[in-house]
Amino acid sequence: MIVIKTISELKEYTAKNDNISLVPTMGALHLGHGALIKEAVKQKNQNGKVIVSIFVNPIQFGPNEDYNKYPRTLTEDVNFCENLGVDVVFVPSACEMYGIEENQKDNFNFSNNYLTYVCPPYFLVNKLCGKSRVGHFDGVATVVLKLFNLTGAKKAYFGQKDAQQLFLIKKMIKDLNLNVDIKSIPIVRDKNGLALSSRNKYLDDDGYNKALIINKMLTKVKNLYERGITNVKILFEEAIGLNNDNMIDIEYFEFIDFNNLENTFEAKENTLVAIAAKVNNIRLIDNLLL
Amino acid sequence: MIVIKTISELKEYTAKNDNISLVPTMGALHLGHGALIKEAVKQKNQNGKVIVSIFVNPIQFGPNEDYNKYPRTLTEDVNFCENLGVDVVFVPSACEMYGIEENQKDNFNFSNNYLTYVCPPYFLVNKLCGKSRVGHFDGVATVVLKLFNLTGAKKAYFGQKDAQQLFLIKKMIKDLNLNVDIKSIPIVRDKNGLALSSRNKYLDDDGYNKALIINKMLTKVKNLYERGITNVKILFEEAIGLNNDNMIDIEYFEFIDFNNLENTFEAKENTLVAIAAKVNNIRLIDNLLL
Repeated sequence: MIVIKTISELKEYTAKNDNISLVPTMGALHLGHGALIKEAVKQKNQNGKVIVSIFVNPIQFGPNEDYNKYPRTLTEDVNFCENLGVDVVFVPSACEMYGIEENQKDNFNFSNNYLTYVCPPYFLVNKLCGKSRVGHFDGVATVVLKLFNLTGAKKAYFGQKDAQQLFLIKKMIKDLNLNVDIKSIPIVRDKNGLALSSRNKYLDDDGYNKALIINKMLTKVKNLYERGITNVKILFEEAIGLNNDNMIDIEYFEFIDFNNLENTFEAKENTLVAIAAKVNNIRLIDNLLL
Repeated sequence: MIVIKTISELKEYTAKNDNISLVPTMGALHLGHGALIKEAVKQKNQNGKVIVSIFVNPIQFGPNEDYNKYPRTLTEDVNFCENLGVDVVFVPSACEMYGIEENQKDNFNFSNNYLTYVCPPYFLVNKLCGKSRVGHFDGVATVVLKLFNLTGAKKAYFGQKDAQQLFLIKKMIKDLNLNVDIKSIPIVRDKNGLALSSRNKYLDDDGYNKALIINKMLTKVKNLYERGITNVKILFEEAIGLNNDNMIDIEYFEFIDFNNLENTFEAKENTLVAIAAKVNNIRLIDNLLL
């Protein structure tokens, strides 16, 4: 396995390898990423290569979000990738990624005043996570398109946990006529049901126990749905009842048609049950696709 | 030469031809386009193919602009391309291009509420033509990226006449890490010096004569500059004096550093002298690169 830090080295590599699968990550890798990487390694063709990018992308963080304190565990991440059979880890700096000189790297130069951005459709952005994270999905779409172009990836792996991101990336592929095959991988949970996330590192014991409510709500919905209850009002009320005393601070808890991101009033196949909540001020998301 | 109307046919063609040069146009082809096409045909490699796209792109026209009455001369355009040795003319409908059903084609569905857009940097957009044509360059960048992806073009040809467009496309290539080599081709003028434009068809004799002032202003600047005058204030005053009685309605007349699109006060190499003016309500642009 090789570690590449510059765009010129990456281009040199991809010029010689035209069968690339990409797993874009922000590092702090856990078994959720592991599921994406394992699947990419498993699915690669004889002459295929798997590239994992590790890049904490400044332009997808809002000014009051956790860009600076986002967990960075590069040494462990590199070992993790090597053990899973990855061919290349691509770890650019923010300046390298956005073509900005090190001595010019104030945040403003990374903004859409100075850089070409890719902007997913407003009506699909302005809901779920996009409502509170203004500009987030522009930053995501922009960096993902850059990574597609830099690697020439034919396949790319995304987690179902970031459901809105997954939807918007697929929409970008269609709208901009990209030739990348998107593979989505189910959410990985720990033994108590908490969806794996790099941000789980922020939780103390109290936070961890409260965070378990999120998956309990989803499981409640799933069980009722499997017993034939599809009325969203009922499913909503039953599930939200588990958050007694407002132990977690729910930002949204919505039932969404995952074909178009519209709210639905009747749960059915491909309904996304999506939650975002702050737990002791740590923002977590989770979802269930019926 | 073949004429292709659908994306699926185009993809079939480009899958078999990986050395494509693209000349993106809105049709109503004239000798200005001819210069781009000739250069593309001349520069193509042994196994190379030249694709001319003809597409009046709805999303780059403002609500009060001339999308509906923009000249459409497809039969002549196809003959024009055939005579110049083009391999493929790609002529999609707006619905085909944006993946919208024919029965859904109200303007709103083409907006950034429903489609992923590519947005060039605000500080580079909000000047020259972008000031009056709000949203124009988002539409241009979006369709150009789509055409790059659809054709897999390695080279693409743009006219120097649309100088801000050329600058923003180059910026998009850099910012989004595209692998397309942009060739810019000098402005072509008629025997009286008027820059060729599809919109010249709108001019009557009176308009035509007034429109000649634009190039006279640029020529005045050029002559003074060649005599050693570089002070922009002087160059501006001398040139604008040619528009006595406000025969043309000047929208902007600016001296721009074509390295960064900043205004400059001292004319030098790579200074762009750019004009937009309405002539009997027909909007024309022209420029001179020193």
